[in-house]
Amino acid sequence: MKTITVLPGDGIGPEVTASAVRVLRSIMKHSQQDVQFVEKKIGGAAIDTYGTPLPQETIDQCQSSDAILLGAVGGPKWNAQSMNIRPEQGLLGIRKAMGLFANLRPVEAYQALIDSSPLKRTFVENVDFVIVRELTGGLYFGTPSERRGANNEQVVDTLAYSRTEIQRVVEKAFQLAMKRRKKLTSIDKANVLESSRMWREVVNQLAKHYPEVTVNHQLVDSAAMQLITNPGQFDVLVTENMFGDILSDEASVITGSLGMMPSASLRSDKVGLYEPVHGSAPDIAGQGKANPLATILSAALLLRYSLDMDQEASKIETAVREVLNQGYHTGDLQIDHQDDKIVNTTEITDLVI
Amino acid sequence: MKTITVLPGDGIGPEVTASAVRVLRSIMKHSQQDVQFVEKKIGGAAIDTYGTPLPQETIDQCQSSDAILLGAVGGPKWNAQSMNIRPEQGLLGIRKAMGLFANLRPVEAYQALIDSSPLKRTFVENVDFVIVRELTGGLYFGTPSERRGANNEQVVDTLAYSRTEIQRVVEKAFQLAMKRRKKLTSIDKANVLESSRMWREVVNQLAKHYPEVTVNHQLVDSAAMQLITNPGQFDVLVTENMFGDILSDEASVITGSLGMMPSASLRSDKVGLYEPVHGSAPDIAGQGKANPLATILSAALLLRYSLDMDQEASKIETAVREVLNQGYHTGDLQIDHQDDKIVNTTEITDLVI
Ligand SMILES: CC(C)[C@H](C(=O)O)[C@@H](O)C(=O)O
Ligand SMILES: CC(C)[C@H](C(=O)O)[C@@H](O)C(=O)O
Repeated sequence: MKTITVLPGDGIGPEVTASAVRVLRSIMKHSQQDVQFVEKKIGGAAIDTYGTPLPQETIDQCQSSDAILLGAVGGPKWNAQSMNIRPEQGLLGIRKAMGLFANLRPVEAYQALIDSSPLKRTFVENVDFVIVRELTGGLYFGTPSERRGANNEQVVDTLAYSRTEIQRVVEKAFQLAMKRRKKLTSIDKANVLESSRMWREVVNQLAKHYPEVTVNHQLVDSAAMQLITNPGQFDVLVTENMFGDILSDEASVITGSLGMMPSASLRSDKVGLYEPVHGSAPDIAGQGKANPLATILSAALLLRYSLDMDQEASKIETAVREVLNQGYHTGDLQIDHQDDKIVNTTEITDLVI
Repeated sequence: MKTITVLPGDGIGPEVTASAVRVLRSIMKHSQQDVQFVEKKIGGAAIDTYGTPLPQETIDQCQSSDAILLGAVGGPKWNAQSMNIRPEQGLLGIRKAMGLFANLRPVEAYQALIDSSPLKRTFVENVDFVIVRELTGGLYFGTPSERRGANNEQVVDTLAYSRTEIQRVVEKAFQLAMKRRKKLTSIDKANVLESSRMWREVVNQLAKHYPEVTVNHQLVDSAAMQLITNPGQFDVLVTENMFGDILSDEASVITGSLGMMPSASLRSDKVGLYEPVHGSAPDIAGQGKANPLATILSAALLLRYSLDMDQEASKIETAVREVLNQGYHTGDLQIDHQDDKIVNTTEITDLVI
C-alpha cells in the first residue's frame, strides 16, 4: 500500500488536486498497486485553521508518505500577514523539512498550444528541456539573513552551499541527461560569485563520470537571453536555487502553456513532491474554470518518479496531448483556432480519464 | 572644456567606440561645447599591457573626466586567466571605483527591427521602458565571498545593502519615472529575502514624495515572465544588482535589437559611464562588420546625462532611427525585408553622421 498525501492549499488548489486525484484513482484501477490518499492543510488554508502555514501534523503526514501532491498556496487574503506567517512559508518549509533538493521542471512545446506562445512558432516548435533547480540551499536558506548595524540600516542575505549540496543536485541532472539527449547546460555566475566557481568545479568533476554527456557552462545573464532566442538548444539545465526560480519562471512562458507545466521536487530516495508551476489564481477559484492539466501532469510525474509506474505516467501524458489535439481546452489557454471547444475543470478531467 | 575618457576595451570595442567618437565630434562642431577625448586601456587590452584589467592610470583618468565611453571587454584569449585577473574585473572595478550606482538600460522597439524579434509583433510593438539596475552593491560586492569550513567544502557569497544604497538608486528611478510615463515597477523577492523586504520598505517610503508616480511591486520570478508575456506594461523598472543583471539581459532580446541597446551608469553628480549592452564579439573583431549603433546611442545618453545636451542627444537618436527606416543596417540584425541594404561599420556611421 502506497500513501499519497494531498495538500490542496489555496485558491484553485483544491479544484486542480481533486482533478488529479480522480485521474490517479482511475488509472490505479487497472494496476496492481494499492494507493491511499490522505489530505492535509498547507499555506493560507493552514493559517486559517492552525495559525501556521505548515502545521506539524502536515509535516508528519508528509514524512510517512511515498509522495505528495500539492495544489498551490497563497492569495490576497493573507497578503497583510507578517512575512513570517505567509502561505509561501508552508511551501518553503515542506521542501526543506522533506529535504527535496532537486526541483525538476519539464518545458515542452505542445503542438496544439504553440500558437498561444508570445514567441514566434519557429522559436518554440522543438522546445523540449528540463530545468533542474537546486531547492533547499542558496539565498533561500542561508544565514545570516537579517538587519544589522546602527539602527538596523544594513541588511544581508547569504548565498550558502556546501560542496555536497551542489554535488547531489548536479548528479541528479547528469542522471536525467543520460536518460534524455545527453546534453547538460550548467548555469552560474562564475565571473562574479565564489559559490558559482565551486558550482562549476563540481560540474566539471562529475562530468568525468559521465563522458557521454556533453556539458557546457552558461552565465545566468546569457542564459536568460538564450532561453528566448534559442530555447531549442537545451536538453537539461541545472542551476542554483534563486537562478532556477527566475529562469524556470521565464522558461514557463515561452511555450505558451503555463497552465500546463508540472514540476517534481525530489531527493535521493523515491519520495517526491509534485505540483503545478502556476499559482493559486484566487480570482477564478471555486468557479470550475481552473485548468487542471498542470496538476494532472504533475500526478504523471509522481507515478514515474515515486511509484515506478512509468507506463501509467506516459498514458496520462498521452491522454492530455490527445485531448488538446482534439481541440479541447480550458479558457485560460489563449488559443484561437476555429473549432476549439472551451470546457471546464470537470469536463477536461473527464476527457483525460 | 569637457573631458571624455574613451575605454575601447577588447574585440569590437575599438571599432564601435571609434564610430561613436566620430559621431560625437561631428555633432560637437555645431555646438558651443569644447570636448577633448582621452583614450585608456581596460579589460583584456589592459591585461596585455599592464598585467591588470584596470590599471591605476585608467582609474585616475576616469576620475578626472566628465564622462566615460566604454566599448566592451573580454574574449577567449583571456578565458584561461585566473578569475581574479579577468577582463570583466576591469568593468566591475571601474563601476565601483567611480561609484556608479545606477545602471540605466532603455529598451525600446524600433519599428524597422520589430520583425527580427523572437516575439510576435503584437507583444513588442509598444515596448518602451527603462531598467534601472543597482550597480555597486548586492551579491557583486558583499563580503564574505569565500570558501570556508573543513577542507574549504563550504562556500558563501553575501547579498549586502545599506538603506542609503537602496535609497539613492530608487530615488533615481523615481526621478526618471517623473520624466516619463510616471509608472514605477520595483522588482524584488520579498517573500524570501530580508534585503528585498528592506528594498520594498524604501520604495514605499519614497513613493510618498512622488505621489504622481504609480508604484507597483513585482516578484523577480513573476517579472521574468511578465517581461515576455506583457512587456508593454512597463515604464521604469528598478531592482537590485543581480536581479537587474539577469532581467536586463532577458529584456535586451525581446525587441530583436540587442545590437542597438545602449546603457548609462550614473551616480549623483553628472559623471557617468556609457557602454553598449552587447559584448566584445571577438569572432567578428577587426573585420569592419560590427554594429556601432548601440555605442552611438550610448554616446547620445552621454550627451543627455553628463553634458546637458539633450537636443544633440535627440538628434543622434533620430538619425539612427532614420537610417534604419531607410533600410540600412549591419549584418547582425536579422531582418529580412526586401530592399534592405547591409552596410559595414564605417558606412552606417557615415549615414548617421
Ligand atoms: C512562492 C515562492 C517562495 C516560490 C519560490 O521562490 O521558490 C515559488 O516562486 C516557486 O518557484 O515555487
Ligand atoms: C561582465 C559582467 C561581470 C557584467 C555584470 O554582471 O555586471 C555584465 O554581465 C553586465 O551586465 O554588464
